[in-house]
Order: sequence, then structure tokens, then C-alpha cells
Amino acid sequence: MGLKVHGDISSPFVKIVIMTLDEKNEDFELVFGGLSSLKTEEFTAKNPFGLMPAFEDGDLVLFESRAIARYVEAKFEGQGTALLGTNIREHALVNVWNDVESQTFYPSIWPICREFYSKKVPDVSVIEASREKLEKVLDIYETQLSKRKYLAGDFFSFADLFHIPVLHFLQCLSDDTFRSVINSRPHVYKWHQDITSRPSWKKIISEPKASDWSYIPKV
Amino acid sequence: MGLKVHGDISSPFVKIVIMTLDEKNEDFELVFGGLSSLKTEEFTAKNPFGLMPAFEDGDLVLFESRAIARYVEAKFEGQGTALLGTNIREHALVNVWNDVESQTFYPSIWPICREFYSKKVPDVSVIEASREKLEKVLDIYETQLSKRKYLAGDFFSFADLFHIPVLHFLQCLSDDTFRSVINSRPHVYKWHQDITSRPSWKKIISEPKASDWSYIPKV
Ligand SMILES: N[C@@H](CCC(=O)N[C@@H](CS)C(=O)NCC(=O)O)C(=O)O
Ligand SMILES: N[C@@H](CCC(=O)N[C@@H](CS)C(=O)NCC(=O)O)C(=O)O
Repeated sequence: MGLKVHGDISSPFVKIVIMTLDEKNEDFELVFGGLSSLKTEEFTAKNPFGLMPAFEDGDLVLFESRAIARYVEAKFEGQGTALLGTNIREHALVNVWNDVESQTFYPSIWPICREFYSKKVPDVSVIEASREKLEKVLDIYETQLSKRKYLAGDFFSFADLFHIPVLHFLQCLSDDTFRSVINSRPHVYKWHQDITSRPSWKKIISEPKASDWSYIPKV
Repeated sequence: MGLKVHGDISSPFVKIVIMTLDEKNEDFELVFGGLSSLKTEEFTAKNPFGLMPAFEDGDLVLFESRAIARYVEAKFEGQGTALLGTNIREHALVNVWNDVESQTFYPSIWPICREFYSKKVPDVSVIEASREKLEKVLDIYETQLSKRKYLAGDFFSFADLFHIPVLHFLQCLSDDTFRSVINSRPHVYKWHQDITSRPSWKKIISEPKASDWSYIPKV
């Protein structure tokens, strides 16, 4: 029985799962019944929060994109890219930067995405406050990336991958200021060029089903 | 060389690490030079964000409480409580509920703590908005905990442990409304009673150094 991803590729969180599966050279089926399907009993039995993605591997049902990605890494350990590194030290450092992503990076970038993509009139004060936080995080990334090629060391890992889909939101804004938070930091810029040139990401954004940004997440 | 935890036990994130070490029956040294020490070069070399906890195991230096906890679990696998479960399926389910904690529970409870503990005049609208989100998460916990003893299954894990220190903040408020978000949900209440009666937690809150809540985190 094959792996099933429930959700639409336009979601950054669905992208995390798909990119992970591709890095592990695993095929899967992408199933999506439209936004309203997420609130049906059939779907909330898979994810009680009614959000995509959900994931099935036989009778194991999971949700939360980063947790699904960890499962895929564990199940296909030794195949494709080692997304948690290859020993306990590397695992530890990947986990540190995964948590920086989820605890500090994501909460500072997401309000900007939300204001621009899901509000008719974005709230400038929210955007500015978040931008300030984001710039501080990226200053720390700049220092880190001046010492190592990727966030957790000299190897590509979840610590990098988890950033890509949400950064893509920012890069897609017509407002140049937000592209410049990346482009003005030479090491962050180089890192971003590197990680977004991976075949696993190129495939996602060239996919004809990637009617990206037409789907606006409610948060 | 022993394990070192840098930070004060009053911090909920330091508590996560200490409780984990205790569940794994590991000794450690707790080192704290006062709040101002967190912004020194010596400390930011350990955690560039200048926040506690930081952690040292020989020349391996880590930060982010949940990542440190994962490292301790991995290093002392097979000793004490298996905080990630005992097989790939259990790991996956623990990771799902860890992410629910960090993505949904924590962002809904933390603004309440912050308003009450670090503002002279708490902003009622922030508190109410967060409370509404928190109640929704806890409704889902209530359903989950009616089917299994702990969040990820019938075994105590990180998925439960990571909730304890921040829930303690809420329980310590003089405002009864917030205690009632737990106490009004029978399965959540039972779960909370169970997980907070663990010796590893009792030890933390009875520790004389636990001048809890005298330290107010700036967020
Ligand atoms: N923390 C979750 C977030 C999932 C999430 O927010 N999904 C959005 C799409 S980007 C969704 O399903 N929105 C539909 C809705 O709000 O009804 C994860 O990482 O999987
Ligand atoms: N996500 C971090 C949060 C760490 C954190 O916010 N620590 C607070 C104490 S609760 C701190 O060090 N505050 C000191 C300051 O802001 O100067 C973790 O889980 O370790």
C-alpha cells in the first residue's frame, strides 16, 4: 500500500512533506477534495484540527507537516538525503535549528504572509513589528551561515528544508522590501540560492498543479 | 565530564530540560549567572539568541529546550522513561503531538502568560483572543484523552511533558477562569493530575531554588 498525502500543493506545509518525500526518493499519492473537505468527519478523523496536510502509511495516520517529515526520514533512513544528519551530534544540531525555525523564525515571518495574503488591507503595524523580529533572526542566521554551509552544519537537513516553503511566500510578494531581507545578507542569500536550487524544490514549484498563492490560508 | 544546564529553574524552558534529565535518571549541574549574563559574549557563544536554557555535554553545545530534551533522550536511550516511545510508530505519534504543542498549544497559551506576568496592565483583548484559541485546542485534547491515557498513546512521553511547565504558569494565576479551562474538561483534568504527579515534576516545584514566577520573562 502506497503513501498518501492529503492536501493541496499550494500549502507551504504540504510542500514540506512533498519535498521530504522527494529527497527520500519516495513516491506518493496526493489527494485533495477541496478546502471544504478539510472540515468533514472523514478528514477530521485524520487530523482533528481540520488542516492539511494529513498523511497515511497503511493504517498509520499522521498530521503536522514537520512530524510527518520526521516519520518519512525515519522510515526511509539510509535512503536519499539524510535529513536529520548521520549521527547523534548531527541529529542534535538539526533539532536545535528545527526549533529555531518553529519557535522564532516561523512566528516572525508568518504574520507578514498572513497580512499580505489573507487581508484586504494589511495592517502595517503588524507587518513592521514582525519584520523587525524577522531581521533579528536573519542576522543570527547570517552569522551562523558565515561559519557553516547550512544551518546545522555542512550538510543539508530539515533545519534548512523547513524554511523553504514559507520563505517562498515572502519572495513572491510584489513588495521588494521583503525580498531584500534575504538579499541584503550575503550568506543568507547564498544559502537561500543553494537550498532553493535543489531538484526536490524545483519540481514542486514547476508542477502544473502548483497554482501557488491562489489558495489563501485562513490563520 | 558532566552535563551542564545553563539557566534558572524559574524558566519553563529550563524546567523542560531538567524534568527530562530526571526522567532519564541523569545528574547535571545547573549554572546561572543572572539575567544579564544571558547577553554576554560568553553566553551568546552558547546560544546566539541569548536565552536560557543552553546545554553542554563536553564540547557539544546546544540550545532550544525541546531540542536539548530530544538529545538527552537519544543519548540515554534505554535508560529511564522512553520519552519518544519505543518504536517508529510511537515516535511518529509523539512527534505529531509535540508539534501540536509547539504549533498550536504554545502560541495560544503563551500570550496569556505574557500579559499576566510581564505587563502591568494586561490587555484584555489579547487574553480573550488567546483564551478562545486555547479552549479550542483543549477541546481536541479532551477528545484525544478520552481515547488514550496520554496524548500520543497509552504511554507518557515528550508530547505530555512539554506541556507541563507552561500549564503551570496558567495554574498559578489568581484568576480562576484559567484554572477552569483545565478543570472543566474531565479527561484533560485527569491527564493533568497524572502528569503533574510525576516525581520528576514534584521535585522541580518543591526545589528551594524554585523561586518560581519571581522571574518574569521578557518576550
Ligand atoms: N502546523 C500545521 C499547519 C497546517 C495548516 O495551517 N494548514 C493550512 C494550509 S497552509 C490549512 O489547512 N488551512 C485550511 C483552513 O484553515 O481551513 C502543519 O505544519 O501541518
Ligand atoms: N524557545 C526557547 C525559549 C527560551 C526563552 O524564551 N527563555 C526565556 C526564559 S523563559 C529567557 O531566557 N528570557 C531571558 C530574556 O528574554 O532576556 C526554548 O524553548 O528554549
